[in-house]
Amino acid sequence: MENQNETMSQHLLSAFLNVYSVLKSELLNDSAFEWSDDSRQWVEEMLDYNVPGGKLNRGMSVIDSYKLLKEGKELTEDEVFLSSALGWCIEWLQAYFLVHDDIEDGCHTRRGQPCWFRLPKVGLIALNGGIILRNHIARILKMHFREKPYYVDLIDLFNEVEFQTASGQMIFGFRNMIDLITTLEGEKDLSKYSLQLHRRIVQYKTAYYSFYLPVACALLMAGENLDNHVVVKNILIDMGIYFQVQDDYLDCFGDPEKIGKIGTDIEDFKCSWLVVKALEHCNEEQKKILFEHYGKTDAADVAKVKALYNDIDLEGVFLEYENKSYERITSSIEAHSSKAVQAVLKSFLGKIYKRQK
Amino acid sequence: MENQNETMSQHLLSAFLNVYSVLKSELLNDSAFEWSDDSRQWVEEMLDYNVPGGKLNRGMSVIDSYKLLKEGKELTEDEVFLSSALGWCIEWLQAYFLVHDDIEDGCHTRRGQPCWFRLPKVGLIALNGGIILRNHIARILKMHFREKPYYVDLIDLFNEVEFQTASGQMIFGFRNMIDLITTLEGEKDLSKYSLQLHRRIVQYKTAYYSFYLPVACALLMAGENLDNHVVVKNILIDMGIYFQVQDDYLDCFGDPEKIGKIGTDIEDFKCSWLVVKALEHCNEEQKKILFEHYGKTDAADVAKVKALYNDIDLEGVFLEYENKSYERITSSIEAHSSKAVQAVLKSFLGKIYKRQK
Repeated sequence: MENQNETMSQHLLSAFLNVYSVLKSELLNDSAFEWSDDSRQWVEEMLDYNVPGGKLNRGMSVIDSYKLLKEGKELTEDEVFLSSALGWCIEWLQAYFLVHDDIEDGCHTRRGQPCWFRLPKVGLIALNGGIILRNHIARILKMHFREKPYYVDLIDLFNEVEFQTASGQMIFGFRNMIDLITTLEGEKDLSKYSLQLHRRIVQYKTAYYSFYLPVACALLMAGENLDNHVVVKNILIDMGIYFQVQDDYLDCFGDPEKIGKIGTDIEDFKCSWLVVKALEHCNEEQKKILFEHYGKTDAADVAKVKALYNDIDLEGVFLEYENKSYERITSSIEAHSSKAVQAVLKSFLGKIYKRQK
Repeated sequence: MENQNETMSQHLLSAFLNVYSVLKSELLNDSAFEWSDDSRQWVEEMLDYNVPGGKLNRGMSVIDSYKLLKEGKELTEDEVFLSSALGWCIEWLQAYFLVHDDIEDGCHTRRGQPCWFRLPKVGLIALNGGIILRNHIARILKMHFREKPYYVDLIDLFNEVEFQTASGQMIFGFRNMIDLITTLEGEKDLSKYSLQLHRRIVQYKTAYYSFYLPVACALLMAGENLDNHVVVKNILIDMGIYFQVQDDYLDCFGDPEKIGKIGTDIEDFKCSWLVVKALEHCNEEQKKILFEHYGKTDAADVAKVKALYNDIDLEGVFLEYENKSYERITSSIEAHSSKAVQAVLKSFLGKIYKRQK
């Protein structure tokens, strides 16, 4: 059974990757613009560099979700293509966000290679490249969904989620965040961090597009009206927040081998769930330590913060949070009237519960 | 009559400006995002700085065109509001392009003030601001046109025009243009400039959004199907090209007092209609002069190019082009079956023919 599932996944992944080639080729020959061979090649390089190199979880989950909504019935070739195309729209959306965020935050590497704008021949043209990525989503939707009854809902959905994510990035993005948390004297002020702020950052910057969007796409394809699925949206946002809390936890307590990086949230003065919880559990003396050492790059400062995290047993606090979240989300899911929708949500939850990476 | 028209225009302009305030207030309270007072103020400043400070010709021309399509019938308050809202969407679109282009091209001033990203408190957050501007268009359309039968066509229209303009900017934008026209040895190569290249640049970077988009918006509001108006589109693109040729002409031969700036197209090695035409009319010797002195900032170089322009009577070449364009466009307009559409197009043409600024 395990093997069969794996073969199925392999099969879907290769179908998914194949759809990328089809979409790319259509976009490179889009008659709305007069492409020359040079400009076509330029766009192709941009796409290959930025779009398909991620984990593809978001994109693939549209197909998975749609399959579960169809209660396991074999998907037609057309359904596999369309759900893959929507999955790719999400990957395109993410590529567009990452290209812009990397420029804005002055990043150096992304997915194990230099950020695209760092390539000498790219530079700030990356801005326009990013905009083209965003425009490609509308082109893909128009090319393949224009005649579907849910076309307008798809466009509205992508626009709304883009708006929420971009607003989140604008208000909580690295540079603005610094303003938000800086005192008039220009010093970082930890006391501005709260669970409420953490939730808003995560909800807008990540949860809408990573958790809600794939399922919403699948629901639309299945003929559902999203207005009837506010509960599903809320559960997915809740899961997205739980996912980010895990991320924050693993950044400090995870195995760098498994998560593939060495966490730097403490050094970066990040509004991590851990520091917010630490502020909640500290006594006055411990609070002073936190204020003094959080957000400094020196290893000794970081060690002080980590020691404090251990003193107040933040790992225990997280484990309790994880269990409670799992229970709460599971009972929300089980209260849903549709078994198919339950299956979609449980599949998402199953993929992230107790994850180590 | 003149006075009455002026009073009418004043009235429409103040109605138009009023709609800006309404739209801004709706966007600042958009429930799709949890705004704080700080973030609301940030967005308001961004809008006031970037959106309403232009000449507003593009935006106002939606109302004008719609009025002509209604054959002069008094517009209802609702119609004034909706056509103004569409006009503002075009102004928002332009603001978004300008914010990005200014960053990409490293500009310093725009509309007589520092480019927005040059403000110390803004910097690269301008990238996100730009994206929000683009998202606002979708929000405005959704808020006011969601129930209109032409809603989906409006969205498709804005997406397509944005795609064409962004592709134009990506391929023909300042930095990429430099690549396009540079030899393998890194020298600028004037021989790559042609009328065909000039036309493509103008058509994609400017004509679609400045000329076609306002009229297309008005046509949709009037219940027309844009598929039936390819001829109108082509006439407007043609006018857009004529408009840019005027711009190129005025940059060199216009009165700086009237056009409000001192032209620098020669210094900037711009793919101006003048240099393309000069290449066409030069003998071999003159061509050498052009290749040697075009695109250099020294006043002596510029003077040599201008002298050459005079030697080959480029002003005369332009005047002939202007007359022929006017005749050609007029007869295309008069061949159109609808008097109302003719009126819209003639009004556009009347505004630009023989303009001195």
